[in-house]
Amino acid sequence: MENQIKIGLFGFGCVGQGLYDVLTQSKGFRSEIKRIVVKDKNKKRKLPAHYFSYNKEEILNDPEINLIVELIDNADDAFEIVSRALKSGKNVVTANKKMIAEHFEELVGLQNEYGTSLLYEASSCGSIPIIRNLEEYYDNDLLKAVHGIFNGSSNYILTKIQDEGIDYATALKEAQELGFAESNPRLDVEGFDAKYKLIIVAGHTHGVFTQPDEVLNLGIQALTLDDVNYAKSQGKKIRLVATTFKIDEENVSLFVTPRLIDADDPLYNVNREYNAVILEGAFSDKQLIIGKGAGSYPTASAVLSDISANAYSYRYEYKKAHQRERFTYNTNLILEVYLRTDNRELLQDLELIDVVRIDEDKVMAKVHLKKLIRLRDKISASNLFLASTGRIYDAENYLLNAEIENVGVV
Amino acid sequence: MENQIKIGLFGFGCVGQGLYDVLTQSKGFRSEIKRIVVKDKNKKRKLPAHYFSYNKEEILNDPEINLIVELIDNADDAFEIVSRALKSGKNVVTANKKMIAEHFEELVGLQNEYGTSLLYEASSCGSIPIIRNLEEYYDNDLLKAVHGIFNGSSNYILTKIQDEGIDYATALKEAQELGFAESNPRLDVEGFDAKYKLIIVAGHTHGVFTQPDEVLNLGIQALTLDDVNYAKSQGKKIRLVATTFKIDEENVSLFVTPRLIDADDPLYNVNREYNAVILEGAFSDKQLIIGKGAGSYPTASAVLSDISANAYSYRYEYKKAHQRERFTYNTNLILEVYLRTDNRELLQDLELIDVVRIDEDKVMAKVHLKKLIRLRDKISASNLFLASTGRIYDAENYLLNAEIENVGVV
Repeated sequence: MENQIKIGLFGFGCVGQGLYDVLTQSKGFRSEIKRIVVKDKNKKRKLPAHYFSYNKEEILNDPEINLIVELIDNADDAFEIVSRALKSGKNVVTANKKMIAEHFEELVGLQNEYGTSLLYEASSCGSIPIIRNLEEYYDNDLLKAVHGIFNGSSNYILTKIQDEGIDYATALKEAQELGFAESNPRLDVEGFDAKYKLIIVAGHTHGVFTQPDEVLNLGIQALTLDDVNYAKSQGKKIRLVATTFKIDEENVSLFVTPRLIDADDPLYNVNREYNAVILEGAFSDKQLIIGKGAGSYPTASAVLSDISANAYSYRYEYKKAHQRERFTYNTNLILEVYLRTDNRELLQDLELIDVVRIDEDKVMAKVHLKKLIRLRDKISASNLFLASTGRIYDAENYLLNAEIENVGVV
Repeated sequence: MENQIKIGLFGFGCVGQGLYDVLTQSKGFRSEIKRIVVKDKNKKRKLPAHYFSYNKEEILNDPEINLIVELIDNADDAFEIVSRALKSGKNVVTANKKMIAEHFEELVGLQNEYGTSLLYEASSCGSIPIIRNLEEYYDNDLLKAVHGIFNGSSNYILTKIQDEGIDYATALKEAQELGFAESNPRLDVEGFDAKYKLIIVAGHTHGVFTQPDEVLNLGIQALTLDDVNYAKSQGKKIRLVATTFKIDEENVSLFVTPRLIDADDPLYNVNREYNAVILEGAFSDKQLIIGKGAGSYPTASAVLSDISANAYSYRYEYKKAHQRERFTYNTNLILEVYLRTDNRELLQDLELIDVVRIDEDKVMAKVHLKKLIRLRDKISASNLFLASTGRIYDAENYLLNAEIENVGVV
């Protein structure tokens, strides 16, 4: 049964306006935006004034509104709105990946406790229906790994540098002008955005809930043409890759780092603002989904799908978190990496293993994931650029050359 | 709520045995195969004899069995089993694309009438969850077109011919030896298999139900190295492509033909037994899903997902067929094609338009879709090879050069 939906919308930026257009043009769909709460009273709006309010209570306390769509930027404000809504019996659709990643277990708990539903397909990989597929379709396929390109803005930058030989700063400016970048570009280029999405994806892949500060994200902000040219000389490209994978039947790991990508890896041909997800199942083998990861309409279309699912009383079941002993999040891994820096102190702190010098400031080496997590802020503030090769070893059995099965090539 | 599932399985071939393995290895999943009905009494089986029966009534009349999984080859027998099961209150999971395509509306009607559920994700594109995504995720995204490589066996053959320069017969034999081909290879190479899948996909994309004999399928059986080399000389590859697309707000069309694929089309890099689906939405833009289209485990994993969905009382809702005035299936189109033959009579019957000669037996031309449908059997039995370029024109406004928006490049 399809329910009549009256929407209270928070935020009317790029995605909010896209949602209005998409809703208006989708026939046969019984839902309507009743009120939109925005912050800026002076901004000119595309819709009549009666839609807008500046007071969140006008949505949260309106008994006629039965669905909250939260599309604001600030994760703390978003959490307040979303948790109050869920507690007061209203279902919520949100695109706020930071908010979910920071309060993931709590938000799952609120849904259980109050019998309300929180849907957030648009939070992860834009138009790619990754959460829904993980929830609904891959629930019994013993997923081994999910990884991919989760941030369109940094992928756009990497594509430009790779293809046109322009420098990082120029490429970043271009991405921002095209509206592909988050308001704070650090979220994109340092891998935070990809990490928030990865944490959500890992929750639906393996049933693990991790905190953002426990999970490694290294970004592309220190990338130079020198790195790109080295990758090219090896027949590879550099992409920012998010990975979550089973180490064994009890442990999973996840991290975001730049990665050297071989020409026969499908991620090699994922360019510009596109996102890509590779799902590796025990039986379905590898599958690849590619779609636009950013932009007003692609994101709005994901929001619309959640609104539509809500009309049919759909909720996430978090089956993987319930159906077995939980996986443990484990960082006791050693990564093979390419690394460039002239910062000797930082290099020493990293305690690299098996170092093979490429030239004066570049090496191939192995490094402990725990070390990278501990030194993340230092690395991020430095000129050190690191890209993993995709080879990962179990630290305990490292001397036995216990490589975790390589993930990536379809 | 998850229900306890007792399965009655029809067929224990490649997919059936894969299903047994997959079920056995999937923890946390409460379902069990109670009985397996097979035809051949003399065949050695991997499981104890008490599982097997040779009498379908032992499944159909067993009140304890609450789910039928139908994995036999013969479409007529399958229809009898499936329709009887649905009428007797048992839910069914099937992989039989021919059976569904031939009885599509009737099977939808039976589900409605008897309140039972028929799931068939494994019928289309192997491990790619295309039906579920069309049903659940793309229901309000105003899909413009879905197309792709729907047959792994012919794609394997095309890849081999393209990459290794071997001839068609050798490549076909290799595909058969690897178990990628249907028991009757005509179903694969003449595009029937892809057409059955396309009919199912079109039902869930646009809510249109078509009969197999109304829909064009041209195959690769007349392909020669000459054709492949011509495509190469133009920087293209030949792939067997299934397409369903909106002509306008009232009409849709669908057909399967070989197609010349540009190097920047994502289908260009889909090789061997892989299937690929491109979804083109009004808002989500183009999305691409790639996965294994054939093989025991990939298909079994799709069957398992349906069994799991059934345990949660999932049914297809066929929303697109219900939610608006139906689209009309329309074949009043003109296709631009590459065509090779020395059969002058057939050429004359086709009444080609805008013919541009390439050499003695090859032309680029345009041809009416209705003519191709009418002459399909003749073409199929001849040495004529045809590949569309992807350019499609509205026949009524052809003189106005009314090209239907090109679909294909992500």
